[in-house]
Formats: sequence, structure tokens, C-alpha cells
Amino acid sequence: MHEPRLTAARVARLATTDPDGRPHLVPIVFALDGDTLYSAVNLKPKRSRTLRRIENARARPDVTVLVDHYDEDWERLWWIRLRGRARVLDDGKERERALALLAAKYPQYREVPPDGPVLAVDVTQVRTWSAT
Amino acid sequence: MHEPRLTAARVARLATTDPDGRPHLVPIVFALDGDTLYSAVNLKPKRSRTLRRIENARARPDVTVLVDHYDEDWERLWWIRLRGRARVLDDGKERERALALLAAKYPQYREVPPDGPVLAVDVTQVRTWSAT
Repeated sequence: MHEPRLTAARVARLATTDPDGRPHLVPIVFALDGDTLYSAVNLKPKRSRTLRRIENARARPDVTVLVDHYDEDWERLWWIRLRGRARVLDDGKERERALALLAAKYPQYREVPPDGPVLAVDVTQVRTWSAT
Repeated sequence: MHEPRLTAARVARLATTDPDGRPHLVPIVFALDGDTLYSAVNLKPKRSRTLRRIENARARPDVTVLVDHYDEDWERLWWIRLRGRARVLDDGKERERALALLAAKYPQYREVPPDGPVLAVDVTQVRTWSAT
């Protein structure tokens, strides 16, 4: 995945599936490594030690990620949709490497490194669309 | 739903469910009328007269919509997540009214009115989050 728009994007939206079958949506920050997308989670400020997106991904790993650009000139709209299989990294070397990639992309993470699991999405399908 | 951030937002992301159970994601422009969100579809430029989000919503009306704000100052992040039941308006007065609301919000629609069905989402749950 050497799509410059994807690599440069600061935010994406992650869709997982709730236990009742309804899609669940959250904005995520992310980093890419080859065909894998990584997103981290902070648990400290939360009341519980679980997070819906993570529990959803454990139960149903087929997830979808969307990166898009909005512009009032609708000729400049575009989006990139990724389908993939999610893995939850609770610890280990791959999690550490993902956190390093995230910290390299987002200075915000250098001050307060995420303390929760990392979601890895092995991308199996990429669809791109642009208005022109 | 008198949430100013929601009303003012220019773009949202709609999650439906694909026939294989995987979440499907597209960016949408939308207008609100009370507790109903409307989004229109253009079919003319498409090869087929169907669109995945519409067929998904017909088959599984439980959908989720996310409006979020990204900022490099992560203290300013926020999102609003809507869960609701989708209805597909192929024609009729409600579709006409929705198109008028969309044209009032988006000048782009005044030049080229959407020719496809309108997706109505009757919102049953609103969750708001902000970093501060």
C-alpha cells in the first residue's frame, strides 16, 4: 500500500461489528507498515479495562477502515477503503514496533505513549475512489 | 438532536453491513430533520442502478453514523455517534422534502439534484465524546 494519500492521512474511521450485529464506528489515528495498519488504544482514562472496538475485533476480525477527504469543491472528493483482518496485540515485539511507528507519525504519542492493546489490521483489499 | 456540532458538520461516515457480515463504510453528506438524518445518492454516473450502501440498508436497517473532528491538538478531538434504523426512500413526499433540506445545506446539490434514492436514518441513540 504505497498510496501517498493514505500514508499522509492523519485520521481514519474504523468499523467493527457489535455483538448484536450492528456496525460500530470510531475515528482512529493510525500508522502503516507494509500491508498492516496499526492503531493504539489508551485505557487509563477509561472506567473499564476493555474497549468496545477491541472486544469487537477479537470476536469478529473482519473490519473496515475508511480514509476520506472532504472538500466543498466536490470534484476534489476522494476516499480509500480498506478491508482487512484484525489482530489484537496485547503485548510483544510487534506491539512495541507499532507504538514506535505511531510515535514517529504522531508527536502527541511521544508525550503520552498509549497503554492499551494495539489493533493490527492486515489489509486484504483496497478500494480507492475519487470524484475526478 | 439539537447538537450544534452535528448540525454544522459537512460530512459524516455511514456504516452499513455487507451481505457477508462485514461492515461497509462510505463518507456521506447529510441533512437533519428532527431525529431523522437524510443522505442522497447519485446513480447516473454509476454503471449499475444499485449502490451497496442502499442495498445493505434495505437488507439490514441497523446502521451507524459518525461525525467527528480531528485536530492536531488532541484536547480538541470530539465525535458524535448515531445509531438508527434506515429506510430507503425511492420516491414520494418525504424524499422530496429531504432533497430540499439537502439542497438548502449544500449549494452543490442545487446545480445537480441527486437522482437516486434517499436514505433516511431514524436515530434511536446518540453518543457524544470529547477529549475535554
